[in-house]
Amino acid sequence: MTFLRNAWYAACWATDLLPGETLAKTILCDPVVLWRDSAGDPVALEDRCCHRHLPLSLGRVTEDTIQCGYHGLEFGADGDCVKVPGQGKVPPGAQVRSYPVIEKYSMVWIWPGEASRADEGAIPELPWLDSPGWVSTGGHIHMKADYRLLIDNLLDLTHVTYIHKNTIAGDPQEALVPVSTARDGDAIRVERWMLGFTAPPMYDLARKFDGKVDRWQLIKWQAPSTVTLDIGCADADTGAPSGDRSQGISMWSNHIITPETETTTHYHWAFARNYKLDDVEVSEVLAKGGLQTFMEDVVVLERQQEALGTVGDRPVVDINIDNAPMQFRRILGDRIAAENNSVAAG
Amino acid sequence: MTFLRNAWYAACWATDLLPGETLAKTILCDPVVLWRDSAGDPVALEDRCCHRHLPLSLGRVTEDTIQCGYHGLEFGADGDCVKVPGQGKVPPGAQVRSYPVIEKYSMVWIWPGEASRADEGAIPELPWLDSPGWVSTGGHIHMKADYRLLIDNLLDLTHVTYIHKNTIAGDPQEALVPVSTARDGDAIRVERWMLGFTAPPMYDLARKFDGKVDRWQLIKWQAPSTVTLDIGCADADTGAPSGDRSQGISMWSNHIITPETETTTHYHWAFARNYKLDDVEVSEVLAKGGLQTFMEDVVVLERQQEALGTVGDRPVVDINIDNAPMQFRRILGDRIAAENNSVAAG
Amino acid sequence: MTFLRNAWYAACWATDLLPGETLAKTILCDPVVLWRDSAGDPVALEDRCCHRHLPLSLGRVTEDTIQCGYHGLEFGADGDCVKVPGQGKVPPGAQVRSYPVIEKYSMVWIWPGEASRADEGAIPELPWLDSPGWVSTGGHIHMKADYRLLIDNLLDLTHVTYIHKNTIAGDPQEALVPVSTARDGDAIRVERWMLGFTAPPMYDLARKFDGKVDRWQLIKWQAPSTVTLDIGCADADTGAPSGDRSQGISMWSNHIITPETETTTHYHWAFARNYKLDDVEVSEVLAKGGLQTFMEDVVVLERQQEALGTVGDRPVVDINIDNAPMQFRRILGDRIAAENNSVAAG
Repeated sequence: MTFLRNAWYAACWATDLLPGETLAKTILCDPVVLWRDSAGDPVALEDRCCHRHLPLSLGRVTEDTIQCGYHGLEFGADGDCVKVPGQGKVPPGAQVRSYPVIEKYSMVWIWPGEASRADEGAIPELPWLDSPGWVSTGGHIHMKADYRLLIDNLLDLTHVTYIHKNTIAGDPQEALVPVSTARDGDAIRVERWMLGFTAPPMYDLARKFDGKVDRWQLIKWQAPSTVTLDIGCADADTGAPSGDRSQGISMWSNHIITPETETTTHYHWAFARNYKLDDVEVSEVLAKGGLQTFMEDVVVLERQQEALGTVGDRPVVDINIDNAPMQFRRILGDRIAAENNSVAAG
Repeated sequence: MTFLRNAWYAACWATDLLPGETLAKTILCDPVVLWRDSAGDPVALEDRCCHRHLPLSLGRVTEDTIQCGYHGLEFGADGDCVKVPGQGKVPPGAQVRSYPVIEKYSMVWIWPGEASRADEGAIPELPWLDSPGWVSTGGHIHMKADYRLLIDNLLDLTHVTYIHKNTIAGDPQEALVPVSTARDGDAIRVERWMLGFTAPPMYDLARKFDGKVDRWQLIKWQAPSTVTLDIGCADADTGAPSGDRSQGISMWSNHIITPETETTTHYHWAFARNYKLDDVEVSEVLAKGGLQTFMEDVVVLERQQEALGTVGDRPVVDINIDNAPMQFRRILGDRIAAENNSVAAG
Repeated sequence: MTFLRNAWYAACWATDLLPGETLAKTILCDPVVLWRDSAGDPVALEDRCCHRHLPLSLGRVTEDTIQCGYHGLEFGADGDCVKVPGQGKVPPGAQVRSYPVIEKYSMVWIWPGEASRADEGAIPELPWLDSPGWVSTGGHIHMKADYRLLIDNLLDLTHVTYIHKNTIAGDPQEALVPVSTARDGDAIRVERWMLGFTAPPMYDLARKFDGKVDRWQLIKWQAPSTVTLDIGCADADTGAPSGDRSQGISMWSNHIITPETETTTHYHWAFARNYKLDDVEVSEVLAKGGLQTFMEDVVVLERQQEALGTVGDRPVVDINIDNAPMQFRRILGDRIAAENNSVAAG
């Protein structure tokens, strides 16, 4: 059991769910079909007709039902079959599973656990993804690796020197700046302040920095699988470490991760910025740079997954940088165990 | 056990078995090599040399033997090894399995069960495939799905509206015409008469119908896996329902189905007609239309098979149209069970 | 257990291991990374970082270490981790397996068994691969079949008539010349002398033979998986059978075979000749002809492997030509069993 089921997961970017279309996604090993009803609200059903198992995603969306592509059975948003062509009565038990689903922060969120426990308040806070004054650039990567390997990766800044040596690896001195790791309720924070450095070229695109800057990298993991990085820089000694970012720029690097299966992952990423909102060049640089950088991680994580498949449970040696990854795995593992125990206890 | 072994199955169209060539086919999970002896008669042997297991289909056909492509051992039509290069004597036990095989109705038929029980009379009746006054157009589709899913599909006419909406789906009123289902010995018949409708365009190719027509769709399943559809139309009220088809045209749509494995199938299909025998355009329209239409089924059935692989034995909900498919599965299932019991009792 | 572990295996041709590069090879199911240290000596380590399992072959070679591509851990030739970035101390147990490795006869040899038992003297004798007066042409074929099927093939000359009918199959009379098979310690010799035949075209490239020749094919298998063929011809009746080859030419056909997995194989082959050393045309003819011929075997052996996967342990019928293959399998099988017993007793 590597999944927490009673939690919200991003099913897709809201713009990827088109009115009138079906979207098939496997989420925590469940085949799911997503569509929008006549009000435009997202619906998520089991992607399997209860009649002869054809995926409903091969069918078509009517006003407020999805119609199976084989024999035309129709299902509403609650999963109940409402029509069987050629007969007046719908047979008892004709229904498919319906999942709680919410559109928020420019994403469609799904709850694969017990529907009665779905609480909108439990969606991770990502307001910059749909707030005025912010603009986002991002995408979706399908990754052939366990989603936890990606969280390990994001909670560790030292890999940047090795994996990203062709993209974002910076001043080797940065790697020596200490990192602080802390538990914050059920979240983990990993933070690094680099004071009095030269601004990296990426930030120059945003705003000219003539002198030294203070830079920050503030990482937060929220269960089960969202990692946000609050990154930016400001003119040195203008108060950024104590909260005054007025002389600098900020960006949120968002990593919204959904297990597809035990060994494959939907990786949604986005940069949200609060400067040069309409500057297409900045958006393009971030879109291209983000994809290139995160694919460097994905290539390594997929090879790591392959190796894990071969070596099985062979022990690993831990080092100092594993502090945050090990903490996140402990918290998540405890919650998964508790969930399974409560299911077993019934 | 999803196969009835003591039965004839179509191995291939007769024209696909060329003199001097080997043809490898897996039939009911058995690897088989087919070839023709010097008299042109088809032979079917286990596709495995008894020496070191190389498929004999990689070898070559001599006058009346097949010669292994590795060390040159030769086998006759009865499966006995008749020559081992480099030694005078053939060692005891040097033989491969030989299957009863018959060429009939433009097909090569094989009997994968006990040879002593092979009875030519048990080949399904398909005389229109090689009788004077008839001409056929057809082909072979390799399908990645259980052969029984295809029989389900052919015994149910309601899917036409949904699967074939881009090809043969017709007047929505047709779907309302009642269907009769009946058991006829070990066969199943599903029949529909549509009286006083407009002739569909396909029939106009054959013969101009100015007024209304009476149409028929008479489906018959014969164990284990042949489905024929007697389809056609005649001028309305000229006696077609009672047997006089002189004012109309007929066509047989033949579906001769051979399990390759539990989840893959050789799908042989052909349209046989008794009109415009030499009209190449009609033949082309039927060949193209048939392939396009049946591939629409195959695409759906393959996705259904994938879904079945995922959900396993999860229960299904049955509806009215499942009457004929459920009857065929009961008859076939009983015969398979009886065969296995008799083997066990053996 | 189909492998003898306490033995030398060719990991690669020496020229395929480039300074500064990593080379990943699976050998007897072990993932191995090969590289050269600053002195140019080959190193073979387990291809897995002890930290988080990423293959080390994705990293890079420094002076005398290999550096992991994820977090920068560095390992020396003995497999010990010598550096963990960001911390002063290397944690206990941070090491990967190191394999004995030797460069000899233009190949890099690896010992997958107990390191303490690795004895350079046990490398098969192949001096013509790097001796003055000899020149070699060869390559590497990746084969999807059990390495023992290839040894079977090489110890049997009768297959030439059937598998190589388009390349090297010669005078059908040759196939009638008797073959002698003998055990020589732990080696097997299969020998054939063809006296008073016409020289085959391939030898004419080397030296014009006007009259009849005496030809020889002297095959030797050395455990675990090296097969050499001493082949050539000389003017008839000039004493070749008793050792005087001065009136002829010789070539060694070398087959140096390394199991990759139970069902896949690294097939290294080379022709070594002691004539026309600088003749590029002769080298090209041999390179092209060798590859074409040996691929004919590989195609058949891969199909044989597929068939074995299907039929499992179904019995085979043995014939006379199986004498040498059966002897080699007995000797090798006994040594593998002894090795496993000694491990079990250990």
